Amino acid sequence: MPASYAYLGPEGTFTEVALRTLPEAATRELIPYVSVQSALDAVRAGEAEAAFVPIENSVEGGITTTLDELVAGAPLMIYREVLLSITFALLVRPGTELSDIKTVSAHPAAQPQVRNWLQKNLPDAHWESAASNADAARLVQEGQYDAAFAGEFAAARYGLEALETGIHDAENAQTRFVLVGRPARPAAPTGADKTSVVLWQRDDHPGALRDLLGEFATRGINLMLLQSRPTGAGIGNYCFCIDAEGHISDRRVAEALMGLKRICLQVRYLGSYPRADMQPEEVQPPRLGTSDEAFVAASDWVARCQDGRF
Amino acid sequence: MPASYAYLGPEGTFTEVALRTLPEAATRELIPYVSVQSALDAVRAGEAEAAFVPIENSVEGGITTTLDELVAGAPLMIYREVLLSITFALLVRPGTELSDIKTVSAHPAAQPQVRNWLQKNLPDAHWESAASNADAARLVQEGQYDAAFAGEFAAARYGLEALETGIHDAENAQTRFVLVGRPARPAAPTGADKTSVVLWQRDDHPGALRDLLGEFATRGINLMLLQSRPTGAGIGNYCFCIDAEGHISDRRVAEALMGLKRICLQVRYLGSYPRADMQPEEVQPPRLGTSDEAFVAASDWVARCQDGRF
Amino acid sequence: MPASYAYLGPEGTFTEVALRTLPEAATRELIPYVSVQSALDAVRAGEAEAAFVPIENSVEGGITTTLDELVAGAPLMIYREVLLSITFALLVRPGTELSDIKTVSAHPAAQPQVRNWLQKNLPDAHWESAASNADAARLVQEGQYDAAFAGEFAAARYGLEALETGIHDAENAQTRFVLVGRPARPAAPTGADKTSVVLWQRDDHPGALRDLLGEFATRGINLMLLQSRPTGAGIGNYCFCIDAEGHISDRRVAEALMGLKRICLQVRYLGSYPRADMQPEEVQPPRLGTSDEAFVAASDWVARCQDGRF
Amino acid sequence: MPASYAYLGPEGTFTEVALRTLPEAATRELIPYVSVQSALDAVRAGEAEAAFVPIENSVEGGITTTLDELVAGAPLMIYREVLLSITFALLVRPGTELSDIKTVSAHPAAQPQVRNWLQKNLPDAHWESAASNADAARLVQEGQYDAAFAGEFAAARYGLEALETGIHDAENAQTRFVLVGRPARPAAPTGADKTSVVLWQRDDHPGALRDLLGEFATRGINLMLLQSRPTGAGIGNYCFCIDAEGHISDRRVAEALMGLKRICLQVRYLGSYPRADMQPEEVQPPRLGTSDEAFVAASDWVARCQDGRF
Repeated sequence: MPASYAYLGPEGTFTEVALRTLPEAATRELIPYVSVQSALDAVRAGEAEAAFVPIENSVEGGITTTLDELVAGAPLMIYREVLLSITFALLVRPGTELSDIKTVSAHPAAQPQVRNWLQKNLPDAHWESAASNADAARLVQEGQYDAAFAGEFAAARYGLEALETGIHDAENAQTRFVLVGRPARPAAPTGADKTSVVLWQRDDHPGALRDLLGEFATRGINLMLLQSRPTGAGIGNYCFCIDAEGHISDRRVAEALMGLKRICLQVRYLGSYPRADMQPEEVQPPRLGTSDEAFVAASDWVARCQDGRF
Repeated sequence: MPASYAYLGPEGTFTEVALRTLPEAATRELIPYVSVQSALDAVRAGEAEAAFVPIENSVEGGITTTLDELVAGAPLMIYREVLLSITFALLVRPGTELSDIKTVSAHPAAQPQVRNWLQKNLPDAHWESAASNADAARLVQEGQYDAAFAGEFAAARYGLEALETGIHDAENAQTRFVLVGRPARPAAPTGADKTSVVLWQRDDHPGALRDLLGEFATRGINLMLLQSRPTGAGIGNYCFCIDAEGHISDRRVAEALMGLKRICLQVRYLGSYPRADMQPEEVQPPRLGTSDEAFVAASDWVARCQDGRF
Repeated sequence: MPASYAYLGPEGTFTEVALRTLPEAATRELIPYVSVQSALDAVRAGEAEAAFVPIENSVEGGITTTLDELVAGAPLMIYREVLLSITFALLVRPGTELSDIKTVSAHPAAQPQVRNWLQKNLPDAHWESAASNADAARLVQEGQYDAAFAGEFAAARYGLEALETGIHDAENAQTRFVLVGRPARPAAPTGADKTSVVLWQRDDHPGALRDLLGEFATRGINLMLLQSRPTGAGIGNYCFCIDAEGHISDRRVAEALMGLKRICLQVRYLGSYPRADMQPEEVQPPRLGTSDEAFVAASDWVARCQDGRF
Repeated sequence: MPASYAYLGPEGTFTEVALRTLPEAATRELIPYVSVQSALDAVRAGEAEAAFVPIENSVEGGITTTLDELVAGAPLMIYREVLLSITFALLVRPGTELSDIKTVSAHPAAQPQVRNWLQKNLPDAHWESAASNADAARLVQEGQYDAAFAGEFAAARYGLEALETGIHDAENAQTRFVLVGRPARPAAPTGADKTSVVLWQRDDHPGALRDLLGEFATRGINLMLLQSRPTGAGIGNYCFCIDAEGHISDRRVAEALMGLKRICLQVRYLGSYPRADMQPEEVQPPRLGTSDEAFVAASDWVARCQDGRF
């Protein structure tokens, strides 16, 4: 297997910064791709060991491009996640002052996150969208625009300087990234894990979705993401991307997945992996009757009953 | 193990008749006991292989004496059930006519089942309770009373004749009897089985009982009996005797029992045994997603996911 | 309406003692009846204003005779309940000593409650059942038996003395009695009330009973009694007698009853009345979203939405 | 109120075509706006009576820009919806042939819907994104590109001709549009209506979302859309945009909304309006116990019970 990770490029974006927080990234060749789709296709084709792409952010919610790629096509699995706080720097050519700035540029996704700051500090600046924040920085370097919103880390690469840092309209702006590979054995449980699945309902009737979620609820499993995505079968037809607490090797998660498998038209397992937002010691203990011990004890008891020894 | 069955006596009652419908009864010594408690104690003490006692009838509901014995004390298990339609004969000494009857006798439990018939046919007859219907017949034989309500089969034993047969106020009057033994491997599933358990709630809060029943409902398991019984911990404290469709070797039943074991304070397994009211071919097939095949397929799928092969 | 209360006689039983704890009993004529059925029939016939009968005890559970009378026939309603701790006195003719006692008598229901005491103190005494504990006392007075188990209050009436008091095998042995009348407006809510209903399922399928109980659970209403009773339509056909927290004038109770009315084949309302086990200040406040205030606020909000004003 | 409808422009797009299917559009001035946000702001500011914007399509799912505008800011309400099948025409300057086409243009959202067609028919054509399909047509008219994907209706406006029509990769590609106004009384029920709401959970625990959906399920109400949107409180914090069957004047819908109001942190009502996908005669009758008649009967019954008349 090639020792390379594909990622959503170009270089110098938040995605690359997030990827480099993974220790294993230091030992791989990191290759930027122009789109989520092309990065994941590289994994499917065996050209890359894994791909690193954004999947959710606190402003836009689920990144639909990534979710749709995971929902359809050859199966892939998530092995790691990274949470990155997103704050922007205003990058300019050395010597530029705030009063010199007539045009600003960034990827369109940055715009809602800096709108208030712009309104207050550069109310007359003209906005020009760029293909990526890094590309905006390059265009500033080349003199096409006066300033770019990008990660502070991009300044050095493009010979710019940060006139202001820590720019963000929303508190707690974060993006979640995932490392995606071909199906294999999930990482060992750490005690603070999550499990991702895609569910397709068998039919649509009152209570159908409630019953799906009931498979988690009756095992005391909290949900962290529920994102509906079109199935392609026409408007109003959705499947559900769900992130749930716990690891598939936890008995309660395994039984919930079994229950879903039995009642859903289809279930796609997307992996179990360490939570980026929490350490094992911060995880709430399972609710009464939902620990592995409770499952094992109950299973043993039924076996003894089946055998007449109790 | 002694080749004898204890049963609720005396001889000549519906209980004995029901017991004799079991083929295995022909090869055992059948010993009448004066009470349900004494018959079950004989089993617990190893003096009898099994005991045959009434557990439910269509007029009184659950027979609380029997249920309370199964709920408490050393564990016992149900291995067979028998349904018997209950109709009474009016037994008299040969030569007695209806107009001669001044006093009638039977076990008190018979009274509500013949009240309307008495009102219409013997409005002036005086009722005298007896310890059992068979005992009433004996007292008629001895001349103490003029007539007894009992099973027609009792006539011959006591030298009486049936002046009228087929007496019953309620249509479909039936009593259910069970053959109870010490814990051992349940009988093999027949395809039309039921499983009996006793459940103690962990605590009492809104939805607690609903959630217990949900363990059956989410596996598509129908309930046939729900009878609350006092726990002895004071008024308002109950456990629940439940009969559910299916056999503990059915995956959906086993998983429901596991779920109950996990959330209940205590679960007592009372056995899985053939249904007396139905043949295998009459049983509804399991609801979608609750067949053994669905469980096995789901379990296999989870195992493959855990292994990264899917 | 006649100013009399019927009660399950004879005089001198726990029922009469319990009845006399009701202040309103002091202003009524109290008339003993030979059976629960006859006492309730007196109410239905307009011969008595109300009837006072036992409905539940901590040893036997629901008193099926009373429940069956409330379930069927012309509708009745419960207006009050009384809880009485049951302890027995051993009543003897003056001068009798423990070593003189060869025979003891009481109503059969008393036997399980004094069995251990007998075993320890009078292991050789012979038990004779009587029609009531009061009747046993009378038979001691007449010299037929040596001692009777009855309420201490019965001693004076029958010229006996209590050789021992406070006899009870089970801690917390209590009987619950109810005052039953013809349907009328329920008593005003006190803040610590209960509501009794009988439910008949529309059909029997997996989850049917769970869904009935869900009508209470989703409104945060705790259940205090669930007793199944045969419907008379053959074995395995049950209706459910339920006691739930709260008063029909509580919004959450009214909505739960509406929900039951919509999904049940039949619902019989048996009344809302003050709880005997609890004072208003001891009642837990309703769970979040289930108080009257929450219901009124939600109803107002929907009305405003229907009107486009929000 | 100004007799104008704002809509997502520019002229000549699918949005305008969908809007013109509404009879009331014929009597209003239709004003294109550059963004969903600006169109809705025009309504909020009272500059337009209503705004017509896309809200869901069969390829992308919920249109997040529109949903986010409805979720936040001054309340708005949906009064109408329109479903439009989306097929593209390939528009060219008169005389252009397929073999002449080197560059094609359209809005980026069109790309996934024509990708396969392009791959097969114009594998070497270069794709250029435009601000809208209409804009792409204009640029073809001006000679900047060779062909544009747009609605066939756009040909006349830009002096182009349709070289091919009916282009769509996905069968059943549809977009749903809504007419949004300031809060007012909802349109009268037609028998085939839907109701839109936004729900914020009070807290996050196992079963929280299941319980929200249970408010619909227990009233027999089917869901047609469940789309989660970030609340802005940080990653993993979502509210839920839900479309449910029925009209707020239906008793079952009103009671479900009351239930949600009681248990949610916040509920925003977005209106009840005729379904575009179904005529009243096609709607399934309400499930047993969930019709208006069942609600009225149940409510009457509870009122009679509260009054002691039953």
